[in-house]
Amino acid sequence: MEKEISQAVIRRMPRYYRYLGELLDDGVERISSNELSTRMRVTASQIRQDLNNFGGFGQQGYGYNVKYLYDEIGKILGMNQRHNIIIVGAGNLGQALANYVKFEKWGFVIIGLFDVNSALKGISVRGIEVRMMDELEEFLKKNQVDIAALTLPKEKADEVANWLVNLGIRAIWNFAHLDLELPEHVVVENVHLSDSLMQLSYNIVRTEKSKDKK
Amino acid sequence: MEKEISQAVIRRMPRYYRYLGELLDDGVERISSNELSTRMRVTASQIRQDLNNFGGFGQQGYGYNVKYLYDEIGKILGMNQRHNIIIVGAGNLGQALANYVKFEKWGFVIIGLFDVNSALKGISVRGIEVRMMDELEEFLKKNQVDIAALTLPKEKADEVANWLVNLGIRAIWNFAHLDLELPEHVVVENVHLSDSLMQLSYNIVRTEKSKDKK
Repeated sequence: MEKEISQAVIRRMPRYYRYLGELLDDGVERISSNELSTRMRVTASQIRQDLNNFGGFGQQGYGYNVKYLYDEIGKILGMNQRHNIIIVGAGNLGQALANYVKFEKWGFVIIGLFDVNSALKGISVRGIEVRMMDELEEFLKKNQVDIAALTLPKEKADEVANWLVNLGIRAIWNFAHLDLELPEHVVVENVHLSDSLMQLSYNIVRTEKSKDKK
Repeated sequence: MEKEISQAVIRRMPRYYRYLGELLDDGVERISSNELSTRMRVTASQIRQDLNNFGGFGQQGYGYNVKYLYDEIGKILGMNQRHNIIIVGAGNLGQALANYVKFEKWGFVIIGLFDVNSALKGISVRGIEVRMMDELEEFLKKNQVDIAALTLPKEKADEVANWLVNLGIRAIWNFAHLDLELPEHVVVENVHLSDSLMQLSYNIVRTEKSKDKK
């Protein structure tokens, strides 16, 4: 796997993983690229191209072995590893993430929840106690943390992110509405809710315009 | 604006809008594509290409007028319109969205919050009262609703989405972890948190591998 795979392809992989997981749950053992294509509303050639990035997996005349493909994509996505997560910012969004049990099914285990607001001290979300930020440094010494989710205000995000990176954090799941300025070795994945809402708005406007034309 | 603009370009527009908004806040009146390129960590040619999709906006030797470009991109994204939103599912995530004041700045106004859980009845989030789902149909008759945000369990999402579409909803901001099966005229924007986490995980694994090689 020497060649660089585009982020566009990577963005589609979780969707394959999700559909294959559903097929598995439904007891489907194998599927042709055409059937998968119909279900996923992606062309069969797109599917073949995407999967060829990782060496194929399909067999002429047989299609895909669902369990095998699910496991292989899972490995590509690191689903065969455990990832410990801390959530920094225990407001509604942080609590929503902490409550999301499904993450654990895929090996993403939330082991800590931190905030500066002393009113939240001692509150537990799904058994995870909210700790104060001044306990975080000690916590990181005692626990392996693979991912820090940042669910805090934009104004504080850059400072906190850089502090976390200095303490050894290598991956950040950023919900704050800015692009973090971090060293290159840090992996960042952004969830910008406003951007998503604006894209929705664009598509609403476009649809209205095309309706007016008809 | 006859030609179809790719969703990849559209996905980048909110980021332009965000950076231009910050420049405006900083009192910057004009900017060259090179300066904008450095700030945004995108090539200047990418910026020119992206903006050319909408007819350009730049002037040779002058660069971009920040306010003008901000307003124009805002219009493209529909930021000059008001969008009324209801949130269906008033759990942590729904409440987190309802609490997000910034949305209003861009014309996204949350006017209703609905749930089936009677324990939430009468609770208010930022002045928005949680109503029960059986009040929703009546609410839609009395209020113009442009967007329904779905923050409810995957198992119920498809049914509720189709019901909303039958009641006249034309745009859905979907947080449930599945692809909704809806008529073609409905605009859907997905926020799949698990997909995002898997993409992060992929990049962690990839980074670890490239480190091992060195």
